[in-house]
Amino acid sequence: MRDVAILGVGQTKFGELWDRSFREIGIEAGLAALEGARLSSHDLSALYLGNMASGAFIDQEHIAPLILDYAGLGNHHLPAIRVEAGGASGAVALHQAYLAVASGHHDFVVVGGAEKMTDVPDALGQAITSAAADQEWETVFGATLPALWALVARRHMHDHGTHREDFARLSVLAHEHGSHNPLAHYRNKISLDAVLGAGMVAEPLGMLDCAPSSDGAAALVLGPLELARRYTDTPIRIAASEMACDSMAVQHRRDVTTVDATVMAAQRAFRRAGRAPGEIPLAEVHDSYSISGLIALEDLGFYPKGAAAKALREGVGAVGSRLAVNTSGGLKAQGQPFGAVGVAQVAEVVRQLRGEATGRQVSGPERGLTHSLGGTGATAVVHILERVN
Amino acid sequence: MRDVAILGVGQTKFGELWDRSFREIGIEAGLAALEGARLSSHDLSALYLGNMASGAFIDQEHIAPLILDYAGLGNHHLPAIRVEAGGASGAVALHQAYLAVASGHHDFVVVGGAEKMTDVPDALGQAITSAAADQEWETVFGATLPALWALVARRHMHDHGTHREDFARLSVLAHEHGSHNPLAHYRNKISLDAVLGAGMVAEPLGMLDCAPSSDGAAALVLGPLELARRYTDTPIRIAASEMACDSMAVQHRRDVTTVDATVMAAQRAFRRAGRAPGEIPLAEVHDSYSISGLIALEDLGFYPKGAAAKALREGVGAVGSRLAVNTSGGLKAQGQPFGAVGVAQVAEVVRQLRGEATGRQVSGPERGLTHSLGGTGATAVVHILERVN
Repeated sequence: MRDVAILGVGQTKFGELWDRSFREIGIEAGLAALEGARLSSHDLSALYLGNMASGAFIDQEHIAPLILDYAGLGNHHLPAIRVEAGGASGAVALHQAYLAVASGHHDFVVVGGAEKMTDVPDALGQAITSAAADQEWETVFGATLPALWALVARRHMHDHGTHREDFARLSVLAHEHGSHNPLAHYRNKISLDAVLGAGMVAEPLGMLDCAPSSDGAAALVLGPLELARRYTDTPIRIAASEMACDSMAVQHRRDVTTVDATVMAAQRAFRRAGRAPGEIPLAEVHDSYSISGLIALEDLGFYPKGAAAKALREGVGAVGSRLAVNTSGGLKAQGQPFGAVGVAQVAEVVRQLRGEATGRQVSGPERGLTHSLGGTGATAVVHILERVN
Repeated sequence: MRDVAILGVGQTKFGELWDRSFREIGIEAGLAALEGARLSSHDLSALYLGNMASGAFIDQEHIAPLILDYAGLGNHHLPAIRVEAGGASGAVALHQAYLAVASGHHDFVVVGGAEKMTDVPDALGQAITSAAADQEWETVFGATLPALWALVARRHMHDHGTHREDFARLSVLAHEHGSHNPLAHYRNKISLDAVLGAGMVAEPLGMLDCAPSSDGAAALVLGPLELARRYTDTPIRIAASEMACDSMAVQHRRDVTTVDATVMAAQRAFRRAGRAPGEIPLAEVHDSYSISGLIALEDLGFYPKGAAAKALREGVGAVGSRLAVNTSGGLKAQGQPFGAVGVAQVAEVVRQLRGEATGRQVSGPERGLTHSLGGTGATAVVHILERVN
C-alpha cells in the first residue's frame, strides 16, 4: 500500500441553501477541489460520494454518477461510487477512496460528501436522519437520535459525575470557532448560559446541544503522495484511515457511555500512523450532540473516561490550548449536512495544516485528527493527517 | 494487486417474503455464504453490502453495521460498508470488496446484496426504484424506469429493425431457466404469445417484459486466491471486476440504443481478464426489462449492435447453445431485489462453474460473465469469473 495525499479541497457554504439543488452544491465542491489541486478532469480515475439519505430527502438515489454527469464528466465513463453510513457517510467514502489510491488501483480520485436536508419539514427530516438508528429496536418506539443521545448523556452524568455545563461547553466552543469560518451555518457566538437556558429537545440536551440539519457539500482530491508535488506545494498525507462498527442499538452496547467503534477505529489509526494521542494538536470530532463530542474526546484516547469534562473546564478545545477541538465550528456551528460532514472535517484539518484557517488558525500544527460517527456510533471513522515537510 | 477468489455463496429465496424482515434475509444469505466457505466469523475482516433504497422501503439507513450486528458480529467491530448504485448496488459492493482484498488491505470479506421491496404498495415501489433515474430531467416529468426503457426499445426497433418478439424471447428464456431454480421468484414457464399478449406497462413493453419487484438477499465470501484452497476445493477466481458510469438521463447519452457504461466496463473487463467475448459460454445479464437484456448482449461485445435479435431467434441463450444467458432465471424470473441482483448473478455463475446448477447446468463451463446496471445504465458493472484448475 502506497502513501496517499490530499491535493485539493473544496467546500460550499453550509446552511439552509434553499436556492440551490443537491447537484449544484455537489458540483461546486467537487470542481473547487479539482481546481485547488490544479488537476484536470482528464487526470481523474474515479469519484466516491458520501451521502446518507438523498432518496428520502430529494427523491433521488444513484447520485454518484449523477454528480459526475453534472460536473460534465459523464462521457469520461469513470467509476462513481456512493457510500452510505449515516452521519459517517462522507468519512466512509473517504476511507474507500483512500483504499483505492493506496492499493494502486486508482491514481487520482475525487471524494465528496453532500446532503440536502432543509427542503423537507423539520419533523420529516428528524425521521429521515433517525433512520441511522435501529428501526426495530429504537425508532419504531419513537426514539430519535437526540432522544438516544440524551439517554447516553444521562448515563454519562450518572457514571462519571458529568454536568450539563461540561458538554454544553463544547457548543460554546463550536460557535466561537464557527464565528471565524465563513462557510459555517452559524456564525454567532453563544454563551454557556444560553446553551443551558435553551429549550429542551430531549432532556438533558437542549436546542443548543444539538447540531442543526444543514445543506452542504465538501470534496477532496486524493492522489499518490509520490506524485503530489507535481500538483501542489502543500500535499497533506493521510497517515491513517480506519473505521470500525458496533451494534446499532445503544442498548446492545457493552457500555452505553463508550462508543467502542470509536475506541477501535482510533486504536487502529494511531497504530497505523505510529502516533499517540498526545502528539495531536488539532481534532475535529463528531459533535452532532454536545455529549457525543465530549465522549469522543475520551474514546479517541485524549482523556480517560470521565476526564474530558475537567479538561474542557480548564480551557482545552480552544485555539491556543494543547488540543484545539472543532476549529471549523464543528457540526454544531459549521453545520451538519449528514453526508458531507466527514469530508468537511478533513477539509478543515487540511486548511489548518496549510495555515489557511484565518481567524482560528492553530499555530504551526504538524498533524490533525478527524472523527466521524454514524447514528449513535454503530460506525466510527478516524483519519490522521500530516503535513509533508 | 493479488488474485481474489470466491470461497462461498449464500442466497435466500427471491419473492414476496412478507413473513421475513430485511435483517433476517440479510443474515440468512451472509451466514450461508460463510458456512459454504467453511470460514469462521473470526476470520472475517469486513462486510460490504449493496442496497438501493432501504431508507424509502423500510425506514432504515446505515444498514451495513445493522446486518453485521444481527449476524452476531457487532462486537467484532469490523468495518461494514454500504454501497448504493440503483440496481447495480450489489455489483458495485462486490467491486469494492474485490478491491479491498486484491489490494491486500483485507483478507476475507463478506459481500452481500439485499433489498426488501414488497412491503410497500406497488405504485410507491415504482416511485422508489425510479429514483435511480434522473429526478430533474426524467422522473419529475412522470417518467418511470419502464417508461424510459420503452423509449429505448422504440428507438432500437426504429434503428435496427428489432421486433417486440425479439426481446420478448428473453423473458421466455428467463422463465424456462427459472423453472429449474428453486430460489426463483417465478418458476412458471411462459410462452412467447403470453409475453406478447400481456397487458402493456409502457408500450412496447408489456407486463412480462418487466422484471418484478422482489425481496431477497445474496452473499459471497471473498478471499485471496493463494489461501483459498484451505477453505474450499472449488475456489472461483474473479478474473475481472470493472465498472463504468455514464449520464443519468437517457436523453443525454451519445446513442440511446447503446449503454456506453456497459461497453466501457466490458472492454476493461475483457482486457483485465485477457479474454474475448467468444470465450464466454455463460452470462448473467441485467434483464430488468427484456430490452435491457437484449441490448446488454450487444454492448458486452457478444454481438454487433442490432445483431442480438437474430442470435436469440436462432436459439442462443438456451442451455446447450454457445452462450447460455441468465440460467438463474435472470431478473425477470429469479426476481429483482434491486440491491441483491448483482451479487445473485455472481452466485449463479459460481454455481454453474461448480457444476451445482441442477436442471439448468451448462456443460463444464470454464468461465462466466455477469453484467449489472443501475437505472437506465448510468452505472454498469462487469465481472468475469473463472474456474481454478
